[in-house]
Amino acid sequence: MKDFTSPISVKRIAEPTVRRLSLYLRFLEDFEKAGRATISSGELAHVGHTTSAQVRKDLSFFGSFGKRGLGYDTGALTAQIRRILGLDRTWKVVIVGAGKIGSALAQHRGFRERGFDVVGIFDVDPHRVGYMLDGVSISDVKGLEAIVRRLEAEIAVLAVPPEVAQGIATRLSKAGVHAILDFSTEPLKVPADVTVRSMNLAMEMEILSFALANR
Amino acid sequence: MKDFTSPISVKRIAEPTVRRLSLYLRFLEDFEKAGRATISSGELAHVGHTTSAQVRKDLSFFGSFGKRGLGYDTGALTAQIRRILGLDRTWKVVIVGAGKIGSALAQHRGFRERGFDVVGIFDVDPHRVGYMLDGVSISDVKGLEAIVRRLEAEIAVLAVPPEVAQGIATRLSKAGVHAILDFSTEPLKVPADVTVRSMNLAMEMEILSFALANR
Repeated sequence: MKDFTSPISVKRIAEPTVRRLSLYLRFLEDFEKAGRATISSGELAHVGHTTSAQVRKDLSFFGSFGKRGLGYDTGALTAQIRRILGLDRTWKVVIVGAGKIGSALAQHRGFRERGFDVVGIFDVDPHRVGYMLDGVSISDVKGLEAIVRRLEAEIAVLAVPPEVAQGIATRLSKAGVHAILDFSTEPLKVPADVTVRSMNLAMEMEILSFALANR
Repeated sequence: MKDFTSPISVKRIAEPTVRRLSLYLRFLEDFEKAGRATISSGELAHVGHTTSAQVRKDLSFFGSFGKRGLGYDTGALTAQIRRILGLDRTWKVVIVGAGKIGSALAQHRGFRERGFDVVGIFDVDPHRVGYMLDGVSISDVKGLEAIVRRLEAEIAVLAVPPEVAQGIATRLSKAGVHAILDFSTEPLKVPADVTVRSMNLAMEMEILSFALANR
């Protein structure tokens, strides 16, 4: 079996591949828990609703391939995908907006389990500032830049009203945040070295409504 | 200006177009509030981060086009897009899972404002059953099918642990739900006439982590 330590060029991996890697990882972890030492591309294809050829292609991107008839070493492949996805380390996360969605996220077990460490929470409401959410005190958003820099936060979750999202995103970018998960409903303009992922609840509901209305 | 009442074939509209229509709508509503009677494709392109040609193409899908130099009638275009997206009516929504995310969604102002009426909430935890969330009582998930059928719910929001998501999705499909917004982390298998949209928080965070790790 090929070793996994050779340098890998991963920058060119396309987003759909990253999504599938994330999915494979979820299943690999289940397989690992179940004590399975090896897994075949066919099994990964089955759980990921794709083809064996696609799995082999996805995994070949970073030089990892199993042996025909033997499959992949579950532990090694899991570790490899975790490394590729940057999940072999901890990321410092701030949440901006401690409303219903922001608070739910701040208390989301899955974050810390996956290495996303919520180190700061911000809100504009003086009634919320100072309160603790899952061990983290809510700070006044006025101090955003200074605190983000001091904490060396790398990822921000934006759960603020749409009309202030752009302003906050700009401030976060200037304070050194290079990754934003945005729950607001309007597209953000950020510098080229900042990655934004959008969780647009309204848009997803409208896509469902469109599908129902045009069945 | 062409009238908007002619029958339109919208089934073939691709998802990226639906996403842009949802975005245009957001801006059109802002323009409407600001009292603007007309809007140009260039203005829509600017706010939607796209091109005038793309806007004209998107809007031509359903036979709506402005006049060069005059632009689109803001009110008529807004009404037209709302109709296309199925937002000219109310949809009955149930939320399954009254944990942190489910509760936050149940109390989400935006839902009702956009015509998504939360009529039922379900949970498996006897300590939650019977409690009210934003005027809706939490029901035991045992009664899911019967209540969904009685309420004639059309959309379900799934905010349950990943290991039970598939089972609930299957039950919802059998009870007549044709649209599911899924917050769990594993892909769902549903009948062909059920549309699923996935809000996979873990996956989005992993895409960010990947981007940061491979900068």
